[in-house]
Amino acid sequence: MTHSLFQRTRRIRFSECDPAGIVFYPQYFVMFNDLMEAWVDELVVDGFRGLIIERRVGMPTVRLEADFRAISRMGDLVTLELEVERVGTKSLNLAWRCMGEDGELRMGGQQTIVFTSLDTHRAIAVPDDFRQALVPAVSTL
Amino acid sequence: MTHSLFQRTRRIRFSECDPAGIVFYPQYFVMFNDLMEAWVDELVVDGFRGLIIERRVGMPTVRLEADFRAISRMGDLVTLELEVERVGTKSLNLAWRCMGEDGELRMGGQQTIVFTSLDTHRAIAVPDDFRQALVPAVSTL
Amino acid sequence: MTHSLFQRTRRIRFSECDPAGIVFYPQYFVMFNDLMEAWVDELVVDGFRGLIIERRVGMPTVRLEADFRAISRMGDLVTLELEVERVGTKSLNLAWRCMGEDGELRMGGQQTIVFTSLDTHRAIAVPDDFRQALVPAVSTL
Amino acid sequence: MTHSLFQRTRRIRFSECDPAGIVFYPQYFVMFNDLMEAWVDELVVDGFRGLIIERRVGMPTVRLEADFRAISRMGDLVTLELEVERVGTKSLNLAWRCMGEDGELRMGGQQTIVFTSLDTHRAIAVPDDFRQALVPAVSTL
Repeated sequence: MTHSLFQRTRRIRFSECDPAGIVFYPQYFVMFNDLMEAWVDELVVDGFRGLIIERRVGMPTVRLEADFRAISRMGDLVTLELEVERVGTKSLNLAWRCMGEDGELRMGGQQTIVFTSLDTHRAIAVPDDFRQALVPAVSTL
Repeated sequence: MTHSLFQRTRRIRFSECDPAGIVFYPQYFVMFNDLMEAWVDELVVDGFRGLIIERRVGMPTVRLEADFRAISRMGDLVTLELEVERVGTKSLNLAWRCMGEDGELRMGGQQTIVFTSLDTHRAIAVPDDFRQALVPAVSTL
Repeated sequence: MTHSLFQRTRRIRFSECDPAGIVFYPQYFVMFNDLMEAWVDELVVDGFRGLIIERRVGMPTVRLEADFRAISRMGDLVTLELEVERVGTKSLNLAWRCMGEDGELRMGGQQTIVFTSLDTHRAIAVPDDFRQALVPAVSTL
Repeated sequence: MTHSLFQRTRRIRFSECDPAGIVFYPQYFVMFNDLMEAWVDELVVDGFRGLIIERRVGMPTVRLEADFRAISRMGDLVTLELEVERVGTKSLNLAWRCMGEDGELRMGGQQTIVFTSLDTHRAIAVPDDFRQALVPAVSTL
């Protein structure tokens, strides 16, 4: 089993769409943040909440790029996918994809996340358990 | 089977919480709107999207009341529940509840929804298929 | 001058509207939360941020009621109004109103807020400076 | 006067921040969308609403890049800036910046917007009045 690829299928909701009837694009970033959180919940024993609240470790985004290729409408069933592209000393590079039911790529992006102390907001090393859960998977890519 | 009670269990997400570390209360209304949409998806053949987009039928809220009794934090597993309390000529009365894993009521509310034409924004009769899916269930309450 | 009535005029934004082209109702609660924050910024010397972050005082909503009488659309200029109805030992009762350019009431509500310690999430007394800023005004109502 | 640079100063709100006490990054995209809408309101006679609702012209984002250099906290006063970098046949390239009170760049990005028909969701030419309002300004850059 690998922890470097994580997928969830869900329906696009009314609350995520705009007066043009399609996903309001900032909502994609909310969806991918929720996906990342669900992924971390499976990756480390104390989950995303333990990381943030008990360990006071933040995972802010320092860079992202996104391409929007096709629209998603309210009610569409989409698959959201997160893939680990690189594990650095203090950072992670993730790729995201949102695909329609036919597998068509609707939106894709890349995100660089840095681990930080929520007390100092300075970068810190990737937590050991996080790294260990990832490295075997990534080394086989 | 009844259509008058609908439940979903989900985790509270980081994106729904505020700097106090608890659910930002307007997010409860987003959660319940998403719940109502999932319920309508099971209730009528063409789902919430068909209702809104093809039939041009809106379901705006005209009144709501809510009591917040206990906080929910990021990572909490909660059960969201919607119950039909009354089916009127042009309106629905719904009750909502959000319960923690121990069954404790954290937040509850009541909502009056009116069916409208999205062309005129005037009230219209509850669509027949919607009413038929509900009435047997509600009459057994 | 009174601190018990606070108003701001603003335009309804695309980001606040739904596929029906009107304000997605949970966004009204975000607007009124932003309004309350701007009000607290003028009421106490260290503002809402000082209250939350430095003093660790929360202002969660424990009850609200809202009536939605007329729709607001993207681009509408609306006036949002907050009025203090009662100052309790540990709580505040606020009334809200959203009015169109013609003064028509579009949405109104009442909210009960409790002051809490963000460390224990238990109710605490209304902070003295907060009360002193309010009481003269309210006593003249 | 030029229409190619547009700025607004505003305070970061509680509703925009996350449990780490800083701006939840998708909220930056909401802020910049609101900024773009305010800019279009000044650029064309019928404003953003006229463009979307009456003309049925959409302005979806097809690509964006963003760098997050420093955090913004609840209560911070920030300046949001939008600059037109290129006007294409059917698209616009915008640059964004969010600066703190000291002028420090906190977040910057680039966005490619395509004009579309909201009936077909296909690309269309930049509307004439939009182009005319922009071109003199951009040609002097």
